[in-house]
Amino acid sequence: MVEIRVAVDGMGGDRAPEQPVRGSVRAVREHRIQVILSGDEQRLRAELEQQGALELLGHGLEIRHAAEIVEMDEKPAQAARKKKQSSIRVALDLVKSGEAQAMVSAGNSGAVMATALVALGRIRGVLRPAIAMSVPNINGKTVVLDLGANTEAAPEHLAQWGFMGEAYARLVDGVDRPKVGVLSNGEEDSKGSDQTRGANAILKRAPGINYGGYAEGSDVLVSDFRVIVTDGFTGNVVLKLLEGAGRFVSRFFRAEFEQSLPRKLAYLLSRAVFAKLRLMADYREYGGAPLLGIAGVVIISHGRSDDMAIMRAIMQGKRHVEVDLNGAIERIVKEHAELFKSAAQAAAPAPGSEPAESTATN
Amino acid sequence: MVEIRVAVDGMGGDRAPEQPVRGSVRAVREHRIQVILSGDEQRLRAELEQQGALELLGHGLEIRHAAEIVEMDEKPAQAARKKKQSSIRVALDLVKSGEAQAMVSAGNSGAVMATALVALGRIRGVLRPAIAMSVPNINGKTVVLDLGANTEAAPEHLAQWGFMGEAYARLVDGVDRPKVGVLSNGEEDSKGSDQTRGANAILKRAPGINYGGYAEGSDVLVSDFRVIVTDGFTGNVVLKLLEGAGRFVSRFFRAEFEQSLPRKLAYLLSRAVFAKLRLMADYREYGGAPLLGIAGVVIISHGRSDDMAIMRAIMQGKRHVEVDLNGAIERIVKEHAELFKSAAQAAAPAPGSEPAESTATN
Repeated sequence: MVEIRVAVDGMGGDRAPEQPVRGSVRAVREHRIQVILSGDEQRLRAELEQQGALELLGHGLEIRHAAEIVEMDEKPAQAARKKKQSSIRVALDLVKSGEAQAMVSAGNSGAVMATALVALGRIRGVLRPAIAMSVPNINGKTVVLDLGANTEAAPEHLAQWGFMGEAYARLVDGVDRPKVGVLSNGEEDSKGSDQTRGANAILKRAPGINYGGYAEGSDVLVSDFRVIVTDGFTGNVVLKLLEGAGRFVSRFFRAEFEQSLPRKLAYLLSRAVFAKLRLMADYREYGGAPLLGIAGVVIISHGRSDDMAIMRAIMQGKRHVEVDLNGAIERIVKEHAELFKSAAQAAAPAPGSEPAESTATN
Repeated sequence: MVEIRVAVDGMGGDRAPEQPVRGSVRAVREHRIQVILSGDEQRLRAELEQQGALELLGHGLEIRHAAEIVEMDEKPAQAARKKKQSSIRVALDLVKSGEAQAMVSAGNSGAVMATALVALGRIRGVLRPAIAMSVPNINGKTVVLDLGANTEAAPEHLAQWGFMGEAYARLVDGVDRPKVGVLSNGEEDSKGSDQTRGANAILKRAPGINYGGYAEGSDVLVSDFRVIVTDGFTGNVVLKLLEGAGRFVSRFFRAEFEQSLPRKLAYLLSRAVFAKLRLMADYREYGGAPLLGIAGVVIISHGRSDDMAIMRAIMQGKRHVEVDLNGAIERIVKEHAELFKSAAQAAAPAPGSEPAESTATN
């Protein structure tokens, strides 16, 4: 087996190139992962020197020059079309050519998606790529998708994401027969929108999937659903609300536990509890969100990613290659092709669902 | 000024008639509010006797017989059309006739909405009623609407809810010039759906409102937005996710703080902190969710409501009458009529937005 190499967008994110370089250096040093950094060669070299890591060049770390940068607020479709020398494109091209097997970027997530579609295309049979993420559930983890790649989603898209998420939960989270649900505004089949009702109907008659019907908002955090699918608008709201809940709880406790000596003592005695909760709510632990359905492993990291988040994303990308997540998605999508085809014929195409505007991780 | 009377659906909710009766008795005894209970007279009398509260009859508490009950899983539209003697309808008719000024029900929330539309109709100028609720935000409270009355929402609906929520935040939550936002999947005007972009455009040019543009999921809990509008599908997901977050945090802490003696001590030292957090996450504190836009004060309570939740809902109903929330909504909607009219002409009617299927509080 070829050694896995991960291409990292050295210029992407609010804190680039420093943090992508730091994260890459940590991945090489601490986990012996081969990394290729894309970006302005001089700046990346200077950054490596600054970090005392020049000696890694040729020993686990490489630089691939990229003449252009995609700004965080740049229009994704335009960036994908015009900037053929961007650090995003160069990193994706490394996956295309087989020099790398996975790509990580904390840059403009819409541009990463649009460029990935152009450079790598979709896995055969995949209708629309989706952004996924495992979030902590009281009973384990729950994969939620789409988190922002598609503002709207037709029934067959949602249904297919159910299978893609199922593969993710099985292979990456290690869940046996993960229970899959469609996010809705109530448990009864009569609830939901035309889109969710269509997806619910497809998945109910789908063989080979542990489909549990409609999931509700609370099920994201407290349920035995291991996969929950939704459109990218709602998924983005869910993701951001979870971030907000983490911030709310942490600010609340900080203010409350400072108010008296007994409370300060209580905090000291239970610090580990709060550290654990913080960790559960910390996006940095998760590294990034895979763009599922692209013909190549692509991990989208938070724009504010630090070295730890980048390192985790690199490890995540490597893992997706090792378990051959994309191979599994291709097989499962092919196996159930009839399911998505018949639905696609029955349903009108969803307008505005071109995956050019991402909102998941900015 | 006429003394305020609140009509309470004595047969509504998972724990009826016991809890609605208990809540009504508490409202009369502890807050001297006049209550009329609707429902099966014999059962309500027996329940009052059971609770040792028969002496309240004629002294703050009355019973109005209702021969029918709407089941929790009954089809709302059908119940509204056919059950003219239901405890829901009888309570609403009391508001219609002026014998009561507000109505509270923990029953089938879709049926309450549909029946309220039939029995009381909308406030003049209101396009669609919406379910609202103030949720705790780190900087105060934030009114979120719609929480489930309308699965889909046209731009002019969302925009009007902005004004209705603004009146609520001002008059009920006591916020001066509350900042209003439209929930979206990103801050930029280019984000969102056709519906949110349309609403964003209307509210941006609207005079007399402190409009802050798009709000994100995290802003529900951590922001200076005091009003956030969204369609009832997304609103329901948000509400349920908040419930789930409360349950997640409380189960997490329960498990963690039992694990060692120092932690048990820590819990004892900081019990008040956790009690405060529980209170913030407790729907019973909030009593219920007002159905805004109906020509009459209607408070929808959680199906699992206990006496405390019912009592709070009764107090809430009384307060909405006292501050003349509906009068304010009528004035503000009339004042800005041009805004909603021109938008309604430009936009196609939203399909499936008949407010007959509620999901907010079941």
